Amino acid sequence: MAYVRPVSSALACAVVSLVLAGSGGGAAETAPSLSPAIAKVAEKLRDEALAGTKAYEIVRSLTFEVGPRSAGSAGDPRAVDWAAKKLAALGFQNVRAEPVEVPHWERGRNAGTILSPWPQTVALTALGGSAASPAGGVEAEVLGVANLEELKKLDPAQAKGKILFVSNHMEKKPDGSGYGAAVGVRGVGAAEAAKKGAVGLLIRSVGTDSNRLPHTGAMRMTEGEATVPAASLSAPDSDLLEGELASGQAVRFRLELETKRFPNAPSANVIGEIPGRDAGTPKEEFIVLGAHLDSWDLGTGAIDDGAGCGIVIETARRIGQLPPAERPRRTIRVVLFANEEFGLSGAKAYAEAHAAELSRHVAAAEADFGSGKVYRIKTRINPAALPAFGPIAEIAKPLGVEFSTANDSGGGADLSPMVPGHVPVIAFDQDGSTYFDIHHSANDTIDKIDPKDLDQVVAAWTGVIYAVAAGDLELRPAPAPPERE
Amino acid sequence: MAYVRPVSSALACAVVSLVLAGSGGGAAETAPSLSPAIAKVAEKLRDEALAGTKAYEIVRSLTFEVGPRSAGSAGDPRAVDWAAKKLAALGFQNVRAEPVEVPHWERGRNAGTILSPWPQTVALTALGGSAASPAGGVEAEVLGVANLEELKKLDPAQAKGKILFVSNHMEKKPDGSGYGAAVGVRGVGAAEAAKKGAVGLLIRSVGTDSNRLPHTGAMRMTEGEATVPAASLSAPDSDLLEGELASGQAVRFRLELETKRFPNAPSANVIGEIPGRDAGTPKEEFIVLGAHLDSWDLGTGAIDDGAGCGIVIETARRIGQLPPAERPRRTIRVVLFANEEFGLSGAKAYAEAHAAELSRHVAAAEADFGSGKVYRIKTRINPAALPAFGPIAEIAKPLGVEFSTANDSGGGADLSPMVPGHVPVIAFDQDGSTYFDIHHSANDTIDKIDPKDLDQVVAAWTGVIYAVAAGDLELRPAPAPPERE
Repeated sequence: MAYVRPVSSALACAVVSLVLAGSGGGAAETAPSLSPAIAKVAEKLRDEALAGTKAYEIVRSLTFEVGPRSAGSAGDPRAVDWAAKKLAALGFQNVRAEPVEVPHWERGRNAGTILSPWPQTVALTALGGSAASPAGGVEAEVLGVANLEELKKLDPAQAKGKILFVSNHMEKKPDGSGYGAAVGVRGVGAAEAAKKGAVGLLIRSVGTDSNRLPHTGAMRMTEGEATVPAASLSAPDSDLLEGELASGQAVRFRLELETKRFPNAPSANVIGEIPGRDAGTPKEEFIVLGAHLDSWDLGTGAIDDGAGCGIVIETARRIGQLPPAERPRRTIRVVLFANEEFGLSGAKAYAEAHAAELSRHVAAAEADFGSGKVYRIKTRINPAALPAFGPIAEIAKPLGVEFSTANDSGGGADLSPMVPGHVPVIAFDQDGSTYFDIHHSANDTIDKIDPKDLDQVVAAWTGVIYAVAAGDLELRPAPAPPERE
Repeated sequence: MAYVRPVSSALACAVVSLVLAGSGGGAAETAPSLSPAIAKVAEKLRDEALAGTKAYEIVRSLTFEVGPRSAGSAGDPRAVDWAAKKLAALGFQNVRAEPVEVPHWERGRNAGTILSPWPQTVALTALGGSAASPAGGVEAEVLGVANLEELKKLDPAQAKGKILFVSNHMEKKPDGSGYGAAVGVRGVGAAEAAKKGAVGLLIRSVGTDSNRLPHTGAMRMTEGEATVPAASLSAPDSDLLEGELASGQAVRFRLELETKRFPNAPSANVIGEIPGRDAGTPKEEFIVLGAHLDSWDLGTGAIDDGAGCGIVIETARRIGQLPPAERPRRTIRVVLFANEEFGLSGAKAYAEAHAAELSRHVAAAEADFGSGKVYRIKTRINPAALPAFGPIAEIAKPLGVEFSTANDSGGGADLSPMVPGHVPVIAFDQDGSTYFDIHHSANDTIDKIDPKDLDQVVAAWTGVIYAVAAGDLELRPAPAPPERE
């Protein structure tokens, strides 16, 4: 996952009336939402998935046969090819690669050296999109800064000509909520540093592990805005740099980032469907199951977001294997989004290409938080539909999944461009206790995934998604998501 | 720690008679070994150490102010300088750097790429001492081999022109005993591969973690013996290569090792003493507390062997702080050995330089197994002294330390050249559950050490070493260590 600010609710509100008009007045369905027949199939799907799924095998295939697949890289078209073939081989219909233009940035060689007082080589990596350093690197004294707020308040006289080092730690929490608090500096730190006259930015990795593996992640890029070469240090290397600064002696540092920006490249959202009984008629409705196909370049993209690809593909595939009599009414559409990490290219392209069809998106669910077990289902649906949705969510209860009626799920990053379309969101919140140990680092590999955890996730998804797809419950229109920060 | 075969007991036996003669017939002391006065001070030292020591601070200083310090590297003389200054500053006497000539090998840039069937870059590192690959790398088909035994049995017709990949896993055990079983291929694999006509060797890292950080370690170098470029892959990368091989398709690999061998370099064993009451007299006896000052180059040498340096320095320092009335009879000599990792240069030089004095080494203890808590004391002393040693070992009992009377401790690698001198060994066996997660990898940094664990170790050492130093118990001569394998 990447971090994305939600589309503002002001914009969202401006569109709501259109959607309401388009959906026939928006009166929510209040009839019983879950027939005994549907419940029975949903429970069967759930229990069978818990006993074992292909999800892990799908992730393994993607990470072994494609591996790193950042936007525009050699792995990107290989991933698109893999996905289209995999969906076809698994029995999906209407498999296609919908073109998406993506940015193309390459990391190149990255190196960092503390020159004095105590020379040490540190493990660091460029922030996604970072400018290159001058050839041979940029060499300067380091100025320690506690956090983004301090950076913003910094006196330019102090910062001028320095490499700034922002050392705040991300807090480890099961729901991953420490990320939002820590990630700000990754997004805007380099631009802020440039405003102060600094010549480089170092940050402590936005992560919760103590491995010598730095975490990358996208900078927020604004056309024409000044910036500086920016990199993140692994946690132990941040400790080291903090320790050298704490000695009170001047700390000199050389930062070498041989990053390169290339022209935009062609990529694609890869889509496959399990057509519902209404498919091909004007009544056809869609449930989008989304994950992103791209990954950062350092790891092989197992938890981010191979796991999500495995979850949504396997959920839809299992529903697609049902006998004709149990086939759901609504169409389940798997969307493997291009370039989530570096600007949501695929998500934006999907929302645009399918704008006319968004009103027929009865629900969307995104899997982009690793492979931990689902512990909660949360929605953002028409509030009037919430009571009727309860029994559907309860299908996952035997899996240890609670149903939150807060109805304020942000939805994932790739669903955010659908917010103005008021597409209802079903979120399967997963345990993220170890997610940020691995996220965006070289450690994002298949061995970090427990296949039984993935089976539990697929069990929750199959039961709930089937019940929504097979029934008639109207979830539209969704309210705007809450503002963050 | 590195892996060292013990000196053969045949050699050891040839020397025993000399030692017995030199020590006045070798009748072991059987009088009560631990007076109430000595026990009281030993217990005070133990309890005060448990409440908090400087050990962590010493390790931190070494890892921050020197960092990587492999033999002959720029860090080597800096470490020698650090150690001499640190010992002097902490109040040691007779501080000196005894010259040692060490080999000098540098890793340079190391890279590995799976070229087909599924292109992937892998995380690997050269084995210590590995030959360089030809410029541009060696490119060949990979042949999977289960373990060293299979490698030795391999038909040269099959191996010729191939890169061999030995994939056996090290078993994780609290006492680290999986290491001996797994490490053989690291030592002799490249020479065996050369004998078979292979062009390169890859091994799964000898380690127990699943981080994307390969583990290095010394190859056994034999002058004039043919060899091949040799590297270890991190565990996830080994999984990947195994997976590609399991596809049944030919796997091509490019291995680039820009290693370099330089002329031998000057280094030193750094020594400092806490003189006993008999110091300067012919009766002076020594207790050697040893650790090694060098580290591998990938990490900052916190657990291997900064921790050991911290333990022995702090143990001796605390005993040295006692009031004159409690001062022990025997001299405690801290030896920070040069180049343990790549051939035991310092240990051999010490045994040689101090050959005439070895008969006055009443005991030696080595700290080279990280920072985990001591769970057992084991000896290799004159068996007749074992009952009398019991009460001394029991000083550590309240710390959760058992006393094993097996009397078969191998002693550490740096003590092995003293085996022919029959120097008694006291081993403080530490919990090594996570030691091989980190050992010889970039992850060997100070954050992996819990200061409270180090305090417990120092508590055990101070109590027991003081009791040996203050009393009269004769532990000499030690029997030969058991043969391994």
